[in-house]
Amino acid sequence: MPHTGELDLIRSIRARAATPPGALRLGIGDDCAVLRPLANHDILVTTDFSLEGRHFRRDWHPAASAGHRCLARGLSDLAAMGAKPIAAFLSLALPAGTLRKAAGRQWVEGFIDGLLGLAKATGTPLAGGDTSTAPGDHILADIVLLGSAPRGKELHRSTAYPGDALYVTGILGGAAAELEALSNHPKRFSRSSPTDNHPHLYPQPRLAIGQRLRTLATAAIDISDGLSTDLAHLCEESNVGAIIDAATLPRIEAEHLALHGGEDYELLFTAKASTKLPKRIGGIPITHIGTITKNRAILISHSGNETPLVPAGWEHQL
Amino acid sequence: MPHTGELDLIRSIRARAATPPGALRLGIGDDCAVLRPLANHDILVTTDFSLEGRHFRRDWHPAASAGHRCLARGLSDLAAMGAKPIAAFLSLALPAGTLRKAAGRQWVEGFIDGLLGLAKATGTPLAGGDTSTAPGDHILADIVLLGSAPRGKELHRSTAYPGDALYVTGILGGAAAELEALSNHPKRFSRSSPTDNHPHLYPQPRLAIGQRLRTLATAAIDISDGLSTDLAHLCEESNVGAIIDAATLPRIEAEHLALHGGEDYELLFTAKASTKLPKRIGGIPITHIGTITKNRAILISHSGNETPLVPAGWEHQL
Repeated sequence: MPHTGELDLIRSIRARAATPPGALRLGIGDDCAVLRPLANHDILVTTDFSLEGRHFRRDWHPAASAGHRCLARGLSDLAAMGAKPIAAFLSLALPAGTLRKAAGRQWVEGFIDGLLGLAKATGTPLAGGDTSTAPGDHILADIVLLGSAPRGKELHRSTAYPGDALYVTGILGGAAAELEALSNHPKRFSRSSPTDNHPHLYPQPRLAIGQRLRTLATAAIDISDGLSTDLAHLCEESNVGAIIDAATLPRIEAEHLALHGGEDYELLFTAKASTKLPKRIGGIPITHIGTITKNRAILISHSGNETPLVPAGWEHQL
Repeated sequence: MPHTGELDLIRSIRARAATPPGALRLGIGDDCAVLRPLANHDILVTTDFSLEGRHFRRDWHPAASAGHRCLARGLSDLAAMGAKPIAAFLSLALPAGTLRKAAGRQWVEGFIDGLLGLAKATGTPLAGGDTSTAPGDHILADIVLLGSAPRGKELHRSTAYPGDALYVTGILGGAAAELEALSNHPKRFSRSSPTDNHPHLYPQPRLAIGQRLRTLATAAIDISDGLSTDLAHLCEESNVGAIIDAATLPRIEAEHLALHGGEDYELLFTAKASTKLPKRIGGIPITHIGTITKNRAILISHSGNETPLVPAGWEHQL
C-alpha cells in the first residue's frame, strides 16, 4: 500500500500527465494502462534504470537533468530502431522521508519537470508506473518506453552487411567532455536549460532521424555506451567487421572521447554503398565514417595505418 | 557499459529465455523488443517494483519465491483487467560484487528460476529488460508486463454501478498469515515449492479467471493491497459505495487478515445482479460477499449491524 506521500505524488503526476489523443486509451489510475496499436504497426519496448550514484548524482546533476536523462535513455533506444514513442512508464522509489523535506519535494518536482518537459517535446505521454519507498539512501528510477513502427519495418543492429557504408549522427564526445566539466564545477551547471546545447545534461534523442532511417539504413544502434563499444555490438550481432577512418570522425573534443566517450545518444548506422544519404537530417549532421567488412576485425585507420579499435566504452564514473 | 559479470548474466538469461511463437517477434538482444499485437486487440501495460527490504528479504524469502513474486505482481494486474500476458521485461540491479560470490550467483540463479518458472507456467516470454550495479546493498528489481485483450473489452476498476453484486476469488488472508509464519520461522520455508499452496511465497495470479470475467463482470481490481484498501479504490474510481456481509467472507484465517491482509493476489469484481456466476472458475471459488451502493460509504455488516469498513491495507512489515 503506498504511503500518504506516495499517494500525493501519484496524484500530482497524474494531474500533470494528461492523456493526449493517440495510441493511449487509458493512462494512470487503473491496474494497467491501455494502448490501441495502429493497424499494421508493431510495438517496440525498452526499459532502462536511472539509479542515483550510477546514472546521476544529486550533487552534480540538476534534478531536471536527471529526469530528462531518465526519459532520454529509453527514447534513444526507440530512435535506434526507427520507432515513434507512444507511451512512457516511470517507476520511482524515494528514500524514506524524501517527500517530508522541502529539498526532497523540490528535487522530485524538478525531476518530474525535466522528464515531462522532454515527454512533451517528443509527444510521449506518461501513462503509468509505480512508486515505492527506496530501501536505502538512493533515488531509484526505471523508465519503460513503448514505441510504434510500421509492421516489420523497424531497424535492427544485426542486419549490417559487408560493403555497407558506416555513418554516425551529430558530433561525438560532447557528453563525456561535459560530464568531466560537470564533475569539476557542478555549480556552473546548476541553472542549465534543456533548450541550450548540453550533450550530457540534456541529450536530444534522435527520434526524427531514426524514423527517417527506416527507409535508408540497413542496420542501426544508439551509441549510449560509446562508439567503440556499440560498434562492437553491431558487428557482433551482424557477424561482420568494420573499418573506421579516424580523420572523418565528427568531433570537437579529443579523439578518445569521440571513440570511447559514452552517452552521446547519437545513432550509428549502416546503409548500402549505393544509397545516397543527406548531409543533414533535421539539422543534425550525418557523417560517413567507415565501411562494414567481411573480416570480423574492427579497425581504425590513421592516415592509412590500420590498428584494432578496442571497445573501451565509457565506464560510469559517478 | 555493463560489467563482465552483467554481460554474463544477460547472456545466461538470454539463453534461457527462448522466444516462443506468439506476439513476441524479437526478444532480448537489440535496443528494443518487438511485439506484433493481434488484430483488433489492445495492449495493456503495468510496472511493479520488487525491492529488497520493501517487497522481499533475502533472510526470509527463498530466492525462487522472490523471483516468482516479482513476476506475479505484474501478472495479477493483467488478470484484474482481463488481459492475457504477451511479454515481461525485467530490470535487475545487483549490489557490487554480488556475482563474484558463489552465494550471490546462487541467489540470482534462484531468483531467475522462480521468475522463469512462473513465466513458463503462464505462457509469458521474458523479452528484455536492463541490468545495472545497484548503488547500495539491496537487490533492486522492476518488472514490466505487457498483455493483450480484445479491443475495448478490458475490465476497469471505475465501472461498478449501484446494485451490482460484489464478488471475490479464492480464500482471503492466507498470504498475510503465511508472511507472519515466515517472519517467525524463515528456515521452515526454505524448501517450499511453487506447486504447493503458498499464498505468500508463491501466489497464483488469477489470469484465467480475469479473462473469463471480461464477459461476466462490470468492474474488477486485484486485491494486492488488501480487500478493504482495494475496495476503497474501486469505489472511489467508480464513485459508488459498498456493503459487505462479514459472514460471507471466504476465509480460514482471522477476519482482520481477510479484510486487511494484503498480497492475496485474488480478484475483487462486480457483476450485474442478474448475471449468473459459476461457483468456481478453474477450480477457484467465486464468492458473493456484498453489494455496490449509490451511497458513497463502505460498510461491513455483522449480523445486520452495519459499521464503516476503514481501509487498512497491509503495511509492508519487511
